[in-house]
Amino acid sequence: MIIAIDAASGEYGPREIVRGAIEAAQEYEVNVALVGNKTILHKCLPTSTRKLNISITEASQVIDFHEHPLDAVRSKPNSSTVVGINLVKEGKADAFVSVGNTGAALCAAFLNLGRIEGVERPALGVIINPTPSAPFLLIDAGANADCRPKHLLQFAHIGSTYTKHVLGINTPRVGLLTNGTEDTKGNRLIQETHKLLRNSTLKFIGNIEGIDIAQGTADVIITDGHTGNVVLKTIEGLGESFVMLRQQLGHSIDNALYLRGRDVLADISLNDLVNGMDYREHGGGCLLIQTH
Amino acid sequence: MIIAIDAASGEYGPREIVRGAIEAAQEYEVNVALVGNKTILHKCLPTSTRKLNISITEASQVIDFHEHPLDAVRSKPNSSTVVGINLVKEGKADAFVSVGNTGAALCAAFLNLGRIEGVERPALGVIINPTPSAPFLLIDAGANADCRPKHLLQFAHIGSTYTKHVLGINTPRVGLLTNGTEDTKGNRLIQETHKLLRNSTLKFIGNIEGIDIAQGTADVIITDGHTGNVVLKTIEGLGESFVMLRQQLGHSIDNALYLRGRDVLADISLNDLVNGMDYREHGGGCLLIQTH
Repeated sequence: MIIAIDAASGEYGPREIVRGAIEAAQEYEVNVALVGNKTILHKCLPTSTRKLNISITEASQVIDFHEHPLDAVRSKPNSSTVVGINLVKEGKADAFVSVGNTGAALCAAFLNLGRIEGVERPALGVIINPTPSAPFLLIDAGANADCRPKHLLQFAHIGSTYTKHVLGINTPRVGLLTNGTEDTKGNRLIQETHKLLRNSTLKFIGNIEGIDIAQGTADVIITDGHTGNVVLKTIEGLGESFVMLRQQLGHSIDNALYLRGRDVLADISLNDLVNGMDYREHGGGCLLIQTH
Repeated sequence: MIIAIDAASGEYGPREIVRGAIEAAQEYEVNVALVGNKTILHKCLPTSTRKLNISITEASQVIDFHEHPLDAVRSKPNSSTVVGINLVKEGKADAFVSVGNTGAALCAAFLNLGRIEGVERPALGVIINPTPSAPFLLIDAGANADCRPKHLLQFAHIGSTYTKHVLGINTPRVGLLTNGTEDTKGNRLIQETHKLLRNSTLKFIGNIEGIDIAQGTADVIITDGHTGNVVLKTIEGLGESFVMLRQQLGHSIDNALYLRGRDVLADISLNDLVNGMDYREHGGGCLLIQTH
């Protein structure tokens, strides 16, 4: 599998991205195609990495965070974002990863890759594991602020397929996120979507509430991009508080766990919980737009 | 101040409610008007409480959780819910508290108390304190799944007034919960509401994201009842996980803090954090419908 990586965008510069790419190439059986300024990227790659499957593709332009996504994609055909997406289009890469302007990545993918047949809009799927329970996919986590019922049905289909292949769950349980578990709950969008999901071929388990998110009730959680983004960032915000607290408490917790010795469960739980809620560990959404 | 309490509804029966009422009468300078079956309530009140300002108002009927709110309110005029609301209407009580069927309480209030002038819909306001930062009001937390921009503006007005009087914040900062801080973010509802809030007399600080919830950025957080309810229950669900973990870790954390001795900050933080996220400590929403 070849993963194209936008090595020109992002907050921390090419060096950090290349470090991550090297780790990925060492740990997993993937070929990495770095996209960016060849001269800079060559300098970032130590000679010790020559045996790894890392290639470099030239991209002379960069799209900044503040740029208007569509305008930037159109005016910068040699940007790392557009060049990277085109590697996927040409079959030279299987996926494209970017920590740059999300909107630009979305536009470039939308314009150059096209959409999955039957799916009118791409959606942002994010795998979350806020507690030691099983991870789940939240979709849409922010790509579409206004949705129609058919869009949510389509998200459920692409989310289920993704969850099946990436999390290895054969028949993912699909839950519809709303303000109550009864079939009649929700706003108009949710009520209409509920009917569509009920009549679909998916394993629809019905409406779920915010309280179910931490319980591992569903493998795929369906929501519009507005609610989904608010929920995602609420979890991130609470996670941040706990990570800070973890740092504040420092070794005292480790000491406590050492004192109890055998209580491995508690040890694992706390660390899992804190790491699970730390979006720096689990950050990154997957723009589900096109498969080969 | 006289608080009418629905002593007939709820999951735990009259005895638990009366226990809470006694505590309230002892701790705060309030008169309590218990509403329910007189015989049963007399039995729940120990003779030692005769000196407290607790009265009993007869209500021979009870509305169950599974009943359709509007039908139940209409067919049960002697229910504790309707009788309690009527005490407020007649000026015999200043507020009504119920742990019963929320929809029924909403209907009874809507039908018998009417609405605040200029406010077309009642909203559910919930004070949340998920972290050691300042508490804030989330409104609407679930009364209106579908809203229009003018409703959200009205919620901002009643929420600000409530926060001013209850939390003692003179000019509460009002934030609009959405998927980004830029003015152009949000779905159509949020974008229109943003303009209304911008032109209002309120202290509107702009759009806020889910990540801001835990940071104490705003005193009043405006959202539609669907998103608000999902967020509220997401916080509750994560809180529940932490409360369970706290119990699991048990004394080991206390031991750890004892070892560190002087690190009072960490101690306070953990307990505040866990208690702050435990909805059994802070549960209950306020249906903002009518003032006298």
